[in-house]
Amino acid sequence: MMNEYNVAPLSRLIEQFERMPGIGHKTALRLAYYILRLPHMEAQNFANAITEAHTKIKYCSVCCNLTDKDVCSVCSDERRDHSLVCVVEDPRDVMALERTHEYKALYHVLHGTISPVNGVTPDMIHIKELLERLKSDDIREVIMATNPNVEGEATAMYISKLIKPLGIKVTRLAYGVPAGGDIEYADEVTLARALAGRNEI
Amino acid sequence: MMNEYNVAPLSRLIEQFERMPGIGHKTALRLAYYILRLPHMEAQNFANAITEAHTKIKYCSVCCNLTDKDVCSVCSDERRDHSLVCVVEDPRDVMALERTHEYKALYHVLHGTISPVNGVTPDMIHIKELLERLKSDDIREVIMATNPNVEGEATAMYISKLIKPLGIKVTRLAYGVPAGGDIEYADEVTLARALAGRNEI
Repeated sequence: MMNEYNVAPLSRLIEQFERMPGIGHKTALRLAYYILRLPHMEAQNFANAITEAHTKIKYCSVCCNLTDKDVCSVCSDERRDHSLVCVVEDPRDVMALERTHEYKALYHVLHGTISPVNGVTPDMIHIKELLERLKSDDIREVIMATNPNVEGEATAMYISKLIKPLGIKVTRLAYGVPAGGDIEYADEVTLARALAGRNEI
Repeated sequence: MMNEYNVAPLSRLIEQFERMPGIGHKTALRLAYYILRLPHMEAQNFANAITEAHTKIKYCSVCCNLTDKDVCSVCSDERRDHSLVCVVEDPRDVMALERTHEYKALYHVLHGTISPVNGVTPDMIHIKELLERLKSDDIREVIMATNPNVEGEATAMYISKLIKPLGIKVTRLAYGVPAGGDIEYADEVTLARALAGRNEI
């Protein structure tokens, strides 16, 4: 299939797109043709964007989020509350929380969850960096915001057991029905937790 | 939205993906993260594949299909019937026809259809190159395989009127291809039947 054309540079480009998550053969073809039709400068800009992103982006030395500086713009923001840290699995979770415009403190990005099934042990995600931070910085509370699934929960439990001896408060994002959602379609576990966590109005 | 992170190289990469056809913001994010997680050499290979494809791939001087040579591998294949030319809209249509393994002759790629609504006039697609070919080469039949929709039909009619005075037989793919559909997505059997049942126009 790959060599339908006998045009090696095109086959190689299609192959690169096909390797991407959620991109099948037809989509890879479409994207490769898009590239071929770009003006030459724009194709060059695309290639440069890949190289540049890969060369310049690294982990923040404090929170492990992605950044092109030594310390990311969140960690170096003096107006944020530096005594509160929200622990997430992925840089995209930081984005999601930033979009709320409600959270004005710091993050810590684990870059994964503990998952014995997939061979991910605690030392393979950035837990050690979090503990180092908690020992040296003046942090009063850690919010666990890992995903509400089995692995996210297990990771949150594992980390909270390591933090508690340090005398730091550990909290968890509230469970409940999603805003704008339909109670009719909420699953049992979510509803049971929403009931248990009910608040007075 | 673009500057959620304040990480310029990442924003630029996401933006490049977002411009691609059928790629929304979430998918662009996913693809950008995929790139960031690649080993450095592989990211470099990706960037090089874009540059290389864009630099090396051009139109075949005979059939206007994409190639990295002066004359493409189809046009330079001695075993093919050089007296029969199949006219298609897009290089992907050549791929689709090649997959039938039924067609062993030549192609001509128009790179579009005549479309007054979209401002595409006959001189903007590769009709002139086809007529030049027909005048100089020894071609006995031209199969019109433009898409079975309004613009494809109109383009086929337009071209057939230009070819007939040259005394060359002009045929059209049989209506085995579903009307209103896309040749690129037709299955092999349908395409093979459409080839076998082609009619003179």
